[in-house]
Amino acid sequence: MFISFEGIDGSGKSTQARRLAGALAERGTETVLTREPGGSPGAEEIRRLLVEGGSERWSPETELLLFTAARRDHLERLIRPALARGAWVVTDRFADSTRVYQGAARAEQRALVDDLHRLMIGIEPDLTFIIDIDPEISLSRGQARGGNEDRFEGMGLDFQRRLRDGFHALAAENSDRIRLIDGSGDEDEVAARVLAALP
Amino acid sequence: MFISFEGIDGSGKSTQARRLAGALAERGTETVLTREPGGSPGAEEIRRLLVEGGSERWSPETELLLFTAARRDHLERLIRPALARGAWVVTDRFADSTRVYQGAARAEQRALVDDLHRLMIGIEPDLTFIIDIDPEISLSRGQARGGNEDRFEGMGLDFQRRLRDGFHALAAENSDRIRLIDGSGDEDEVAARVLAALP
Repeated sequence: MFISFEGIDGSGKSTQARRLAGALAERGTETVLTREPGGSPGAEEIRRLLVEGGSERWSPETELLLFTAARRDHLERLIRPALARGAWVVTDRFADSTRVYQGAARAEQRALVDDLHRLMIGIEPDLTFIIDIDPEISLSRGQARGGNEDRFEGMGLDFQRRLRDGFHALAAENSDRIRLIDGSGDEDEVAARVLAALP
Repeated sequence: MFISFEGIDGSGKSTQARRLAGALAERGTETVLTREPGGSPGAEEIRRLLVEGGSERWSPETELLLFTAARRDHLERLIRPALARGAWVVTDRFADSTRVYQGAARAEQRALVDDLHRLMIGIEPDLTFIIDIDPEISLSRGQARGGNEDRFEGMGLDFQRRLRDGFHALAAENSDRIRLIDGSGDEDEVAARVLAALP
């Protein structure tokens, strides 16, 4: 089974991806925990081009191509081999992030994201958890974390609000695959909500 | 006017691109000489991922996405602004290289190259010179050059022969835009052939 966690920056999705992978491993399921952009050695190299530098470093189209290149490498070298041997894959972000981030930056970009996904990626997760949280809370978490991977967080509160709206719209359009999880409260509470939503 | 030089590794196309740019500048035409992959700061960073490392570093599809990302950046940040102010652009390689290199590696890849080009790049050069040479000669030139940018040259003589066939086929399909230039003889002789073929 292929599961993705999605949400705005600082939503707690990375923590929840790790928690779910841990819970699955405890059940005896072989589980691979991974993340995007990155997740395979080549994709991690592409990641560095994407997450560092100013917000104008790449145009939306070039950025989209780099995300897709990283995703293709991740898919071929880590996700597909793991699924083929029967493991579960839990990824912190996948294509929904691209749809929402690029769509939030420029609405007309969304069709291009979908066309490129169909052409070069194809696969969707079997199940996606969107960890939903107020951007004012998530942004303060992100800033507390520090580091130099702050290109998207640097885009501000208004951008994070558009991202949240984008994730809500995506959940409504894909109710078969996507579960919207209340991300408020402490880590254990959110983890319990994720487990309860697992089929 | 947007002009590209194409050909197999060691064909002399880089030298000829430089010669033509020099001849145009002497005529008083503002001329921008550039190259792919690369040509803009972002694209040069992507270039490093593409030209270094072993031949199995990227799958054909991931490689195609990286080439396209670099091309999009190059187009937006260097080629289009130069053309917009009336300069001529002379580039050492453009999309034809991707068509031929990817098609030579895997024939079924060619349709994907064309689809991705239409979706993310669109533009073709006004004029393309393919510097045509026997792969045994060109390969010995390439090896004499040294350096660590030898990922494609490392693929061997048979691969270079398929590339040459690919360039010939492309020239036949695009006779309105592509001029096949005999690359034998010394640099001055080839440069004279290029100038004679300029409209």
